[in-house]
Amino acid sequence: MPGRRSSGATTATTGTAVPAARVTIAEIAREAGVSAPTVSKVLNGHDQVAPETRARVLELLEQHNYLRRRARPKKTIGLVDLVIREVDSLWACEVMQGVQSAAAEHGAEVVMTAAHGTTVDTRRWLDNVATRGSDGIILAVTDLTPAQRKQVDSLDIPLAVVDPVGSPDAAVPTVGATNWQGGMAATQHLIDLGHRRIGILRGHEDALCARARLDGYRAALERAGIEVDPALQQPGDFYYTTGFSGMRELLALADPPTAVFASSDLMALGAYEAIRQAGLRVAADVSIVGFDDVPNAAWASPPLTTVRQPLREMAALAARIVLLGADAVLPGPTLRMELATRLVVRESTGAAPGMPAA
Amino acid sequence: MPGRRSSGATTATTGTAVPAARVTIAEIAREAGVSAPTVSKVLNGHDQVAPETRARVLELLEQHNYLRRRARPKKTIGLVDLVIREVDSLWACEVMQGVQSAAAEHGAEVVMTAAHGTTVDTRRWLDNVATRGSDGIILAVTDLTPAQRKQVDSLDIPLAVVDPVGSPDAAVPTVGATNWQGGMAATQHLIDLGHRRIGILRGHEDALCARARLDGYRAALERAGIEVDPALQQPGDFYYTTGFSGMRELLALADPPTAVFASSDLMALGAYEAIRQAGLRVAADVSIVGFDDVPNAAWASPPLTTVRQPLREMAALAARIVLLGADAVLPGPTLRMELATRLVVRESTGAAPGMPAA
Repeated sequence: MPGRRSSGATTATTGTAVPAARVTIAEIAREAGVSAPTVSKVLNGHDQVAPETRARVLELLEQHNYLRRRARPKKTIGLVDLVIREVDSLWACEVMQGVQSAAAEHGAEVVMTAAHGTTVDTRRWLDNVATRGSDGIILAVTDLTPAQRKQVDSLDIPLAVVDPVGSPDAAVPTVGATNWQGGMAATQHLIDLGHRRIGILRGHEDALCARARLDGYRAALERAGIEVDPALQQPGDFYYTTGFSGMRELLALADPPTAVFASSDLMALGAYEAIRQAGLRVAADVSIVGFDDVPNAAWASPPLTTVRQPLREMAALAARIVLLGADAVLPGPTLRMELATRLVVRESTGAAPGMPAA
Repeated sequence: MPGRRSSGATTATTGTAVPAARVTIAEIAREAGVSAPTVSKVLNGHDQVAPETRARVLELLEQHNYLRRRARPKKTIGLVDLVIREVDSLWACEVMQGVQSAAAEHGAEVVMTAAHGTTVDTRRWLDNVATRGSDGIILAVTDLTPAQRKQVDSLDIPLAVVDPVGSPDAAVPTVGATNWQGGMAATQHLIDLGHRRIGILRGHEDALCARARLDGYRAALERAGIEVDPALQQPGDFYYTTGFSGMRELLALADPPTAVFASSDLMALGAYEAIRQAGLRVAADVSIVGFDDVPNAAWASPPLTTVRQPLREMAALAARIVLLGADAVLPGPTLRMELATRLVVRESTGAAPGMPAA
């Protein structure tokens, strides 16, 4: 993994202590019962290693604290790369602001690239990175292809991921939010208001966070003894249009929901419009909870109750990880961080029909 | 002016023809009756030149096509700087997307900097630019201080401005939208629907575009023989909060408007919420027209009628100007471009009370 791989350098440029005793790749290989090149392959994220071998080697590397020793011996370039799925939402703005502020703390600037998909399709980008250098790469809701990943490895550029798409390599630091808890809090809020028919507008199926939110929704319902009805779950992609169409489907049901958890604020805005078009009112007729708390949420009319995820802080943390090294930034031995979400109650949620108003 | 100043080089790296016959600074100086260093000062944007002298020199430079001759003899860095007032709105996203797509066409990447105000307060940014180089600087609704401007001049980095804040130097290419026409079209649309009490939520007073929109509003009213009532004009800053408070003020008037032109889509969203809180409905009770047509407009409920300004195209044009030179990009001798706006009618506007519905 770039940025965590020991390059033999022990200069503690970041001021973090570097353990004196160190294990070698050969020792890890011996202990794992594999060859040294195999350990290297695991470190470099190559895919020709059998999953069990890979897991065993990673475990040993973790045990020996091998991955935590790199202390940024390279000279800095002054540029950090932020590669973001699309630059078309306030979600993206928040991530940019977080990365910029953290980069600025360290005198670095941000090169912005739009991936236009779940993997980076900008062929030229990585060639540019190779030419000009980069102090670190932050991927937001996008991923590198295996070939790109190899190239980043060979360039020895630290990598961190904000809101991973799939299940990224165990050696890559990731920063997310407590999506499961957030989904549960959103749903619990609706249950507390007396709702029993609670729908969900689901996020993009490729995104882990969407799945975690769905599972949180299910968990809250089950805990409250409410049947999880698949008819109340609409697929989506975090964007406005699927929020709109999903909500329209839900309202067309014989027994429509009285409350809906939208997996993003944008989907909630789409739901608002479907509710308006049906001649209904948000809150009074259908309660809506969003997710993200990007500025769109407070700008909605009525202002949207939503689950706040600290996007700027998440992005800033990712930037600090690539600039300072994970061991200087992350609190424990983990490379997986989830920052807390919290429910922000505004005016889009109200008591269920037949319930006394709060 | 950086990027337009002849540096004696005639290598046409961009493929644009470089005129053979050329006037020298000395000749311009002679013709203007000033010294050659004075002409240089004008070219470099220094402020110690008397305004009349400056105007005379600029006119001669323009006459002789002096500023149009530069053909990017420098080697390219592969980085374009986009300095934007704040990275906190979909307006910013649109500008970023435009700059990125145009930069990508030329293999360049974009370094994003937030100015956090009407002038760039990031001291370190320009030092970084000096160190790493830049193929061009694009300023969006922000400006350089005179000292920063001198530094950019000395670095010979082309500059272009999207949506100028004040009145930028005549030698700097600027790209805007037809704000005056847009303000007029928005207001005319409301007049056509039968409205006579038409308010305006004004944009930031520092921004030329806000002033042009206001003047367009006034012109439409005057042309229709409707009195321009200062009580119907609320100050603002393009953001949600001033849209909300301004609309609340308008609704509190003894004779409130039946329609309002908001100088940005965000201000329109604020107006929506003030209307909702007053127990009124957008369109049915108060018509609203926005300006920008950022995605927020279509995401509003009801979807917002607004004046579309082609932000991506404007930003892309600015990027091409700095990368290719204004003479390769701009159609005529002008350094001022305004791209057309157009009214996009959605559902936030309706017939005035007492008028038959359209």
